[in-house]
Amino acid sequence: MPKVFSVVGYHNVGKTTLIEELIKELQKRGYKVGYIKHDPKSHGITDKEGSDTYRVSKLLNKLALLSPERLTLWEKREDDPLRVVEDYFSDCHIVLLEGWKSLEGVKKIVVGDLEVEGIRVKGVEDIQKVVDYILCE
Amino acid sequence: MPKVFSVVGYHNVGKTTLIEELIKELQKRGYKVGYIKHDPKSHGITDKEGSDTYRVSKLLNKLALLSPERLTLWEKREDDPLRVVEDYFSDCHIVLLEGWKSLEGVKKIVVGDLEVEGIRVKGVEDIQKVVDYILCE
Repeated sequence: MPKVFSVVGYHNVGKTTLIEELIKELQKRGYKVGYIKHDPKSHGITDKEGSDTYRVSKLLNKLALLSPERLTLWEKREDDPLRVVEDYFSDCHIVLLEGWKSLEGVKKIVVGDLEVEGIRVKGVEDIQKVVDYILCE
Repeated sequence: MPKVFSVVGYHNVGKTTLIEELIKELQKRGYKVGYIKHDPKSHGITDKEGSDTYRVSKLLNKLALLSPERLTLWEKREDDPLRVVEDYFSDCHIVLLEGWKSLEGVKKIVVGDLEVEGIRVKGVEDIQKVVDYILCE
């Protein structure tokens, strides 16, 4: 199973920028990385109302859209990222979550001053500290 | 492995409507059904430019968005629906493809007058004929 870390922090504090740099640093070292973003308020609309896939999604638990070079898969399931890691990311060395500040059993990388236990960083300027933390954990 | 059928036909001929009814009929009989839609021209935009997942997708082969009760997974891969069936739909009894009129080794359900070999139907009014065909193949 991959090592899993969650990057947490207030909105617009630089979580995704840190994650982008982390992915590049880890890939440079030969690690296969996965990423799961938390969307607790369903802001990430991923299908168009009225599209064929939208219509069929009303009837099925799992369906897919296959475009050239890209698959989109939708599945009805619980908001449990560790089960998603198990089911879809078991081929990765490291999976980075974005969000889930209250998730138990996962080490947190805290960006900014959110009151959560974990390694605390200012942002992408602390990239080396975070890489070392991930690799040594 | 699931039985796989492809529903093909010109645009706006009623393919998705037939598929919706097929899914209901097959589910009534206790079958687990999957669905993969072909998007050869990448019309099905499934992520918003500038979103966190869009940014990270530039760096990774596989990533996910986890919303309440719904997972969206993106993966860079070839336009090969049978490999997608193998990797993601092996728990289904029947997988319906929409599109791929030239795909070899898959039985076609032809809606309307497209010149393709397969069982030919007018539309949803032939639902019983299609259900029988799927179950007997």
